[in-house]
Amino acid sequence: MATSCAFTKFHMRGTLLKNPQKVDRFLCRTVRTVASAKSEVFHAGGHRSLSALQEERFQQAERSVLIGYHSRINEQTFLKNLSRHGDIKKYFFYESYGVYALVEFTNRESVASLLDEAVIPTCNHEATVPFKSRLLSVKNLDSADHLNLQLNQQFQPQTSMPINQLIKRLAKEKTVEQQLISLTEAYQLTEENSRLRFLVCSLIRDLASTYFPECTIKPFGSSVNGFGKLGCDLDMILDIDGTSISKVKPKSGLSMEFQLKRVSSERVVTQSMLSVIGESLDRFAPGCVGIQKILNARCPLLRFAHQPSGFQCDLTANNRVAVKSTELLYLYGELDPRVRFLVFTVRCWARVHNITSNIPGAWITNFSLTVMVLFFLQKRNPPIIPTLDHLKKLAGPADRSVVEGNDCTFVRDFSKVLLQKNSNTLEDLLREFFDFYATFPFSNMSINIRTGKEQHKPEVAPLHIQNPFESSLNISKNVNNSQLDRFIALCQETSWLLQQSETMIPRAGDQGDNPTPWGLASLLLPSQVVAVKSRKETTGASQREDQEFTGIFKEYQVNKKLRRLLYLRLCLFLHLFLGCIPFADFL
Amino acid sequence: MATSCAFTKFHMRGTLLKNPQKVDRFLCRTVRTVASAKSEVFHAGGHRSLSALQEERFQQAERSVLIGYHSRINEQTFLKNLSRHGDIKKYFFYESYGVYALVEFTNRESVASLLDEAVIPTCNHEATVPFKSRLLSVKNLDSADHLNLQLNQQFQPQTSMPINQLIKRLAKEKTVEQQLISLTEAYQLTEENSRLRFLVCSLIRDLASTYFPECTIKPFGSSVNGFGKLGCDLDMILDIDGTSISKVKPKSGLSMEFQLKRVSSERVVTQSMLSVIGESLDRFAPGCVGIQKILNARCPLLRFAHQPSGFQCDLTANNRVAVKSTELLYLYGELDPRVRFLVFTVRCWARVHNITSNIPGAWITNFSLTVMVLFFLQKRNPPIIPTLDHLKKLAGPADRSVVEGNDCTFVRDFSKVLLQKNSNTLEDLLREFFDFYATFPFSNMSINIRTGKEQHKPEVAPLHIQNPFESSLNISKNVNNSQLDRFIALCQETSWLLQQSETMIPRAGDQGDNPTPWGLASLLLPSQVVAVKSRKETTGASQREDQEFTGIFKEYQVNKKLRRLLYLRLCLFLHLFLGCIPFADFL
Repeated sequence: MATSCAFTKFHMRGTLLKNPQKVDRFLCRTVRTVASAKSEVFHAGGHRSLSALQEERFQQAERSVLIGYHSRINEQTFLKNLSRHGDIKKYFFYESYGVYALVEFTNRESVASLLDEAVIPTCNHEATVPFKSRLLSVKNLDSADHLNLQLNQQFQPQTSMPINQLIKRLAKEKTVEQQLISLTEAYQLTEENSRLRFLVCSLIRDLASTYFPECTIKPFGSSVNGFGKLGCDLDMILDIDGTSISKVKPKSGLSMEFQLKRVSSERVVTQSMLSVIGESLDRFAPGCVGIQKILNARCPLLRFAHQPSGFQCDLTANNRVAVKSTELLYLYGELDPRVRFLVFTVRCWARVHNITSNIPGAWITNFSLTVMVLFFLQKRNPPIIPTLDHLKKLAGPADRSVVEGNDCTFVRDFSKVLLQKNSNTLEDLLREFFDFYATFPFSNMSINIRTGKEQHKPEVAPLHIQNPFESSLNISKNVNNSQLDRFIALCQETSWLLQQSETMIPRAGDQGDNPTPWGLASLLLPSQVVAVKSRKETTGASQREDQEFTGIFKEYQVNKKLRRLLYLRLCLFLHLFLGCIPFADFL
Repeated sequence: MATSCAFTKFHMRGTLLKNPQKVDRFLCRTVRTVASAKSEVFHAGGHRSLSALQEERFQQAERSVLIGYHSRINEQTFLKNLSRHGDIKKYFFYESYGVYALVEFTNRESVASLLDEAVIPTCNHEATVPFKSRLLSVKNLDSADHLNLQLNQQFQPQTSMPINQLIKRLAKEKTVEQQLISLTEAYQLTEENSRLRFLVCSLIRDLASTYFPECTIKPFGSSVNGFGKLGCDLDMILDIDGTSISKVKPKSGLSMEFQLKRVSSERVVTQSMLSVIGESLDRFAPGCVGIQKILNARCPLLRFAHQPSGFQCDLTANNRVAVKSTELLYLYGELDPRVRFLVFTVRCWARVHNITSNIPGAWITNFSLTVMVLFFLQKRNPPIIPTLDHLKKLAGPADRSVVEGNDCTFVRDFSKVLLQKNSNTLEDLLREFFDFYATFPFSNMSINIRTGKEQHKPEVAPLHIQNPFESSLNISKNVNNSQLDRFIALCQETSWLLQQSETMIPRAGDQGDNPTPWGLASLLLPSQVVAVKSRKETTGASQREDQEFTGIFKEYQVNKKLRRLLYLRLCLFLHLFLGCIPFADFL
């Protein structure tokens, strides 16, 4: 119990072995990729399906509790106290609106034993709703003993590092490839964060299962598709399909049926369930605040903040297409490690340049960006990942899935997918990605990962990306011309920067606290091309990032090398749009 | 299984033995009194406390299910089918928005087994909320076999008989005493109805216990105080005290506490719980309709109709004074059988004459009327029941109870209460009751069962009846002068009628379908004194009863003896208010 974080070992993923030419490079470092978040459940030589992975995570979550505490509690006393209820399998500490410990016991009975000992606190001036959950607080009644015994607990970060820290980190790397890996490492969900996400699902399920014992609450989207960034929203889906599974009905004699409330549609059922769960979250569940019932949306949902985890949560129901999309992205991410490195990098680049945003609007979404990366990788020669149609051809009977009339069938057994050998480096791919979209015929072509080929647009929309499972839908319908233009301009600028030796060679001997950004790091500096435009368009949600960038400017404004870089960008802008080169006084 | 009703034996209650002079009269008939509703749990030679009785009923309810069915299902097939899940202890059939069977198994596991077999029905044009409860439906898949096998099921009534039927029934009795007993028998809750009430509590508890596993939902008021009429509302109380029972907290070391939602007051806790339960009843619970959340009332409550039982339900929380009042009334009802006979009779009389009403307003309530009867019985010489102060003196340490600062202590052990011998017959008591209140000094005196003495009114209110447990409150504060005047006038009229041999002697040889009302039956005919006034004041809720009375008038209008009776009433009216006697042409 000497270390406060029980997770230190991270294994290499079998995927890499499919690209032997890459193995050495990857093996030279302990890659804490997204796969590390499932190191416990990954068995050598193969992949785990998302559902198997999730099942393991659920089991862990059900054996876990979340305990708020004051830092003056001694870690060893704390663990000794908990051990009375059974063996502790894993635990870690983190900060989020207070200090918390997530503790996983070896057996579920230990949780029951712990809850059995827990008391309802008495408070003098307030009343409490005596709803008992696995969210606890621990208090030290021996006020005297904490000073001598207190240890420094190691807190596991649950939010991604600020952009200026990331830029410094990347500037220190030796190669662009290492920069992409380092960015992914810094941003991806950790083992701890993944556990915390499943525990929150499990806590919410405790509420929902009171009515629907067979129900499940699963995370979907970024939390599990392999592309989630630390601090991303927790999207959950309530699934009550298990409840309705029809038993073998008798053919004759008497048939016993449950009397049920009848409503006009499945949509009303969903609204009913979310409404009651929302009401109970709002009234009973500790730490759940700001509950919004968005029941009249196309896909009804509950939105709330779960303070003890720090997650912004969306709970929806019966959104099965979203679950299939999650499975598909997970599969693509598992097929080749370059998929994840590239997606993380492109998403980070897009966020920095306000191509994506936290608030709804005409911005390109992370999902659209991810599909664009997948499409780009399908278009390599030879392709790095197969098309969705190919994955569908490989599907067995167990993979068959039709959701609301949409064929969502694709193979889920990784071993059936044979990849062609493609030896592109991450650096090549990064440059080619921006080249590809800097020159993509957006005006008349649509992006389609089902066929892996651009197609003529079926409708007038600035950006057309076919929904992988609902082919009549455009997942980027919201994007307007202005946003698409910004994206193209930034791709052009970035592509150009990636071709400049000025940008792409690390500065030797410049490894202090403020190393000069180069390579990927320089791509994350504010753009001159679209900065003015971007600044006009930013709104509330982007202001925090704006402030971050102002900080970066201040930090780097005395750096001559940076000025040189900014000059290069300005050159590009004038070259592209005005056809002239500015006066070199700038330097 | 030859009979469809498993409840046929009803035992005599031990209470009667305390009044030996009454025993013979009571023993001569199988008295299906309120006590019969607990025949199963009553052990010879003593009383059960209300809490012991309730505990037994809860156990029964938890082993029970409610099954809707089509009458074409053969009873024996039905029972044989259910028996596969375990021994059936009791069952009965009734009608309420459909045909239902209440089935109690010997073991609770049988219920689980039955539910495990039950299926979610499929419906083509509607969606269903798959909330599984102990409310089931059974369907006969063998359409051919029902015709030959169908038996006549005996349905247990769950509503009281219409007033005209009651009058006919009473007219056939031989003595006034028998009439009071017959009225009580006809009106009181049956064993079956009592079971149904506890089952509904248990079904609602299934919902509430999802959040508060230690919670209870208990009926209170008429459903259990011994004075409930078939068809009366089901008042329930949600009690989560068990949840908060403090365990032995550690004195040192670490103390584990549940994290709870904090709110400003206990009232907000109550509102929160009722709000969530209301939402889930509304959205999930089959058969629960018309849910009203009345959360801003002095005592927040949920009001709804439970169709499968036919009960109009009120669910409140933490209303502990009401629970103590229920216990007190139950105790008084148990102490001497005359209490119940008199209360039932007076309540029925009051309802017939629109002194009480189903809708809120300036009317006297059943609770006020009951306290008036208790006060009257305390004022007999020797007293038939002791004062509340006397019951408090007899209380032991276990009986001590303080609710929100109000001392609710009284003895609950029947054996400690020694009654004085009072040989008044029910006929005497009935007459004296109306005499007593016809001449009670309402203008300046207050009714107080705590002391058993009238006291000077502490405030200006037409009718002042001290709340037994909250002495500063007047339980009849709502009553206006007009309603009190009607009550007094009717008491005077009734008292006068009870002194007329014309009214009080049964008509020999008149035992056909329309026997002449006499004695108690004649007191239930519409009054001439207050009829006009009453008719003006009746509103929606009383219209059904009005129609019933119109029916009675039509039925009896050709009956000369009735005309004679009406003449007598008119005489009384003129004698009392005008000082003259009308022209005898009326006859």
